[in-house]
Amino acid sequence: MLSVTILGNNSAVPAFNRHPTSQVVTQDGTNYLVDCGEGTQIQMIRYKVRRGKISHIFISHLHGDHYYGLIGLINTFGLLSHQQDLHIYGPAPLQQIIEIQLKVTEAYLPFHLHFHTLTDNATLVDNEKIRINCFKTTHRIECYGFSFEEKIMKRKLLIEKVRKAGIPVSFYTSLQSGLDYLTPKGGIIKNDEVTMASENGKKYAFCADTKYDESIIEHIYEADMVYHETTYLDNLRDKAEERFHSTTRQAATIAKKAKIKQLLIGHFSSKYNTLEQFLIEARDVFPDTELATEGKTYEIH
Amino acid sequence: MLSVTILGNNSAVPAFNRHPTSQVVTQDGTNYLVDCGEGTQIQMIRYKVRRGKISHIFISHLHGDHYYGLIGLINTFGLLSHQQDLHIYGPAPLQQIIEIQLKVTEAYLPFHLHFHTLTDNATLVDNEKIRINCFKTTHRIECYGFSFEEKIMKRKLLIEKVRKAGIPVSFYTSLQSGLDYLTPKGGIIKNDEVTMASENGKKYAFCADTKYDESIIEHIYEADMVYHETTYLDNLRDKAEERFHSTTRQAATIAKKAKIKQLLIGHFSSKYNTLEQFLIEARDVFPDTELATEGKTYEIH
Repeated sequence: MLSVTILGNNSAVPAFNRHPTSQVVTQDGTNYLVDCGEGTQIQMIRYKVRRGKISHIFISHLHGDHYYGLIGLINTFGLLSHQQDLHIYGPAPLQQIIEIQLKVTEAYLPFHLHFHTLTDNATLVDNEKIRINCFKTTHRIECYGFSFEEKIMKRKLLIEKVRKAGIPVSFYTSLQSGLDYLTPKGGIIKNDEVTMASENGKKYAFCADTKYDESIIEHIYEADMVYHETTYLDNLRDKAEERFHSTTRQAATIAKKAKIKQLLIGHFSSKYNTLEQFLIEARDVFPDTELATEGKTYEIH
Repeated sequence: MLSVTILGNNSAVPAFNRHPTSQVVTQDGTNYLVDCGEGTQIQMIRYKVRRGKISHIFISHLHGDHYYGLIGLINTFGLLSHQQDLHIYGPAPLQQIIEIQLKVTEAYLPFHLHFHTLTDNATLVDNEKIRINCFKTTHRIECYGFSFEEKIMKRKLLIEKVRKAGIPVSFYTSLQSGLDYLTPKGGIIKNDEVTMASENGKKYAFCADTKYDESIIEHIYEADMVYHETTYLDNLRDKAEERFHSTTRQAATIAKKAKIKQLLIGHFSSKYNTLEQFLIEARDVFPDTELATEGKTYEIH
C-alpha cells in the first residue's frame, strides 16, 4: 500500500518535456508531496493526483528546481478552499520566502500553514501507519533526503472462521495484534487459526540531490525502494563531483552497498535528450533499477 | 513589425490546459515579456519563443498568477549563461521577493539584474524604436497596465532611384528623415521622388487585471490593439465588481469608448471549460474582438 508517483524527473532547466523535481508518495490513501518544482500543480492536473488529499509537503533544499512551484500550489489550495492544515517541512529560509509572497498578495488562506525546519536525522511524522524521517545529503547547499517507513501491518482477520469460533467483536483488535482467544469455557483458539499475516510494512527513501556519499547508506539500508539522483552519465564523474551531483554508477553503487531491493533513478541533466544509457549503466552495477518516468506510479512490494 | 504572442490566458488557477498570464510583445526583433505566471518558461519552450532575446520583463502586479514564474526564468537565464542585462519592472516588493530567493540558492548570475519600481503614468523605455509606458488599473492590489508605442517609422529608400540620382550614401539617413537633396550643381531632388512612406508606428496596450474603469481610456485611446481582461461572462457582473475583475461586455465597452481597432480578451476564470460565449458577448458590443489563445501570435496592423 506504499507507492510513489513521479511528477518531475529533470534537473534544473526544464527540457525535452521533462519537468523539475516533484513526486508523490502514497501510503494507504494519504498523499505526501516530496519537492515541488515549478509547474508541479500543472503536473498534478495532468496526472490526476488529487491535490485536496495533500497535507504534508517535504522540500529537500532551496535550489529552485525543487521548490519554485510551492507558492503557486499553496495559493491554489487557498483559491480552492482547501480546509485541512498544511504542514511544510524544509530548510529554515523557506518560511520567510513563502510568507513574504503571501503577504503581498493580501490573500486569506482558509487553512493553517505550519512550517517545520529540517535538522539532520529527525523524525518528521510518526503515527500508527507511517514514520517519516529526514537525513542530510551532501550537496552544494543544505539538503535533506526523506525516508518513509510503513508500520508493521496488523494481522488480517479470517472473518468467517472468527465468527464460527464465536469470538466477540470487542476482541477483534486483540486478534489483529496477534493475541490468542480464551473461550468462556476455558478453551484456547490460537491466533493463527483465525487470522493471517499481512505483508510487512515497506520502506521507501528519497535521496534528494547529493554527491556520492556512503554516509546515507545507514538511512536507506535494506529499503524496498530508493530514489537516488543520477544527474549525469558516468563519463561526467568529474563534473558530478564538482557540482555535488551523482552519476549512474555512483547511484547504483550506493544501492548495492545499501542492499536495497529496487532503485529508481532521476534528476537527469537537461543536456540529455534520451535516457536509455542511464538505465544501461546503472543496471550494469545494480540490475533492479528503473528510470523515474513522469506520470508513472511505482508500487513498492 | 509589432506583434503579441500569448503564453498564458487563464486566471488564477491553471485549468483546462490553460495557463496563468504571460505574453510576449515583439517589436522589430526585440521580445518584451509581459507578466510571468508559473510555467512561463515551459510555455516559451513549447511555443518556441527565444528566451535569450529577452532583456525587459514587465510585471503588472503581485498576484501569483502574474509573477510566480519569474524566479524560475531568472534562474534558467543564469544556468544558460544569459549575458545581457535584465531589466525588471514591477511593484516595489518584487525586488525583495526575487533577491531573497537568489540569495538562498547561492547562485551566481552572469548578467546584471536591474529592478525598476512602477509608479503611475511613467515612461519605462524610450528609444528610437519604441516608447513603453505604464498606467494604473483598478484592482484589489496595486496593478499596472503597459502600452507599447512604435515610433513613427523612417521613410523607405527607393534604392535604384536613389543611385540613379547619384545621391551619396552619407545622405541616406537624411533622405529617410524626409529631407530633399540639393545636387552639387544646385538642383533639387524632391524627397518623395526617391523614397516612399513607411507604415506609421503601431500601438498595443495590455490592461492587466482591472475592474471596469474608464480612467484607462486615455492610455489606450485609438490604439491598434488592446488586451483587456474578461475573467467572467456578463451574467457574473456582480462577482466581477466584487473581485475587481471585468466581464466580456465591460471589456468591449472600454474598447468601443477608447475607439481602438482590435480587442484581445483573456484571463478567463477556471470555472469555464469552453470560451465561445466570451467571444459572442464581447463581439455583440465590439465586433473586432479576438480570444487570446495560447501559442497564437497576433500581428498588429
